[in-house]
Amino acid sequence: MTNKNEADRRPTVFHATCEDIPELLAMINELAIYENHASSVTATEESLTRTLTLAPFTQENSGYARTLILRLPTNPTISSDTPSAVAGFALYFNNYSTWRGKQGIYLEDLFVRPQYRKRGYGRVLIQQLARLVVEQDGGRLDFQCLAWNELALGFYRGLGLQVFDQWVNVRGDGEGLKELAGLELGANVVD
Amino acid sequence: MTNKNEADRRPTVFHATCEDIPELLAMINELAIYENHASSVTATEESLTRTLTLAPFTQENSGYARTLILRLPTNPTISSDTPSAVAGFALYFNNYSTWRGKQGIYLEDLFVRPQYRKRGYGRVLIQQLARLVVEQDGGRLDFQCLAWNELALGFYRGLGLQVFDQWVNVRGDGEGLKELAGLELGANVVD
Repeated sequence: MTNKNEADRRPTVFHATCEDIPELLAMINELAIYENHASSVTATEESLTRTLTLAPFTQENSGYARTLILRLPTNPTISSDTPSAVAGFALYFNNYSTWRGKQGIYLEDLFVRPQYRKRGYGRVLIQQLARLVVEQDGGRLDFQCLAWNELALGFYRGLGLQVFDQWVNVRGDGEGLKELAGLELGANVVD
Repeated sequence: MTNKNEADRRPTVFHATCEDIPELLAMINELAIYENHASSVTATEESLTRTLTLAPFTQENSGYARTLILRLPTNPTISSDTPSAVAGFALYFNNYSTWRGKQGIYLEDLFVRPQYRKRGYGRVLIQQLARLVVEQDGGRLDFQCLAWNELALGFYRGLGLQVFDQWVNVRGDGEGLKELAGLELGANVVD
């Protein structure tokens, strides 16, 4: 067995390009269905293309988040995984720690298709994000997990990650946010 | 009483420039002291200047977060607030909602100096962030609050914001993160 053969049997991790958008949207929908929130998905291929930073990365690239895609080996003698060779994704953006005065990475969504679970692919994606934080001299890798999901929390702790349960999320969106934005500000704004 | 006079008595909200960095760092330290975490601050004027997106915003601006500064009116016949006219700040960055396929704003730190509280300045900063979300056609304004801080949570709910308590934070940093990044990946990485 050679190193070449080993590499052939491994999945590949890469940053999504515009060609990966249809598959990414499919997985976003699969994740929402899995979480019983199918109707919450309003993303479209157009909105993803317009708002994501897609590879290859250039100085002119706009966008608010990047996406790692995990693809299975395509050699048919090694893998018969069909119809799609794409097993999962991790969508992330840079966050910021005020106390550290440096950026980090926030993992917004991690998804491995059900038929490809229990192969360590979730771990691969998290590890690759950890590498990106270290490469960019960042401070933290952050994400959230449902509090009741002890299985997932145990997995994350096993990766050396810490769990903090003293915070709650506060959110404004939809009409409530527009209403708040429309109130008299009580201050002068200088742009 | 004219509108001009009213405007003179209002605070001003603006995006931090490089000139505001010393005052911002002072407030970051004050916030950490207030939260009994003074030793957690490793930010410096240099690191803030290098990693924040400072006004005026240009296409070439790098950086990972922006900062709103709230300054008191400086007319001495109206206000005698000294020694500093800066009352607080809100540091934020863009986050991303996969389901919406659009960006939002995440408020990382909100701080009003103790001597300037109870004047609605926290509300001003949150409202201005809500405006920025709406202006950029974003989806959400998100932040976190300590779960036991019922006073703050009531204030946020009063602004029409929602509180979600079913999530916990997962974090890797320091040596643990480096260790995770250094493990054999089990995948091929294509840059």
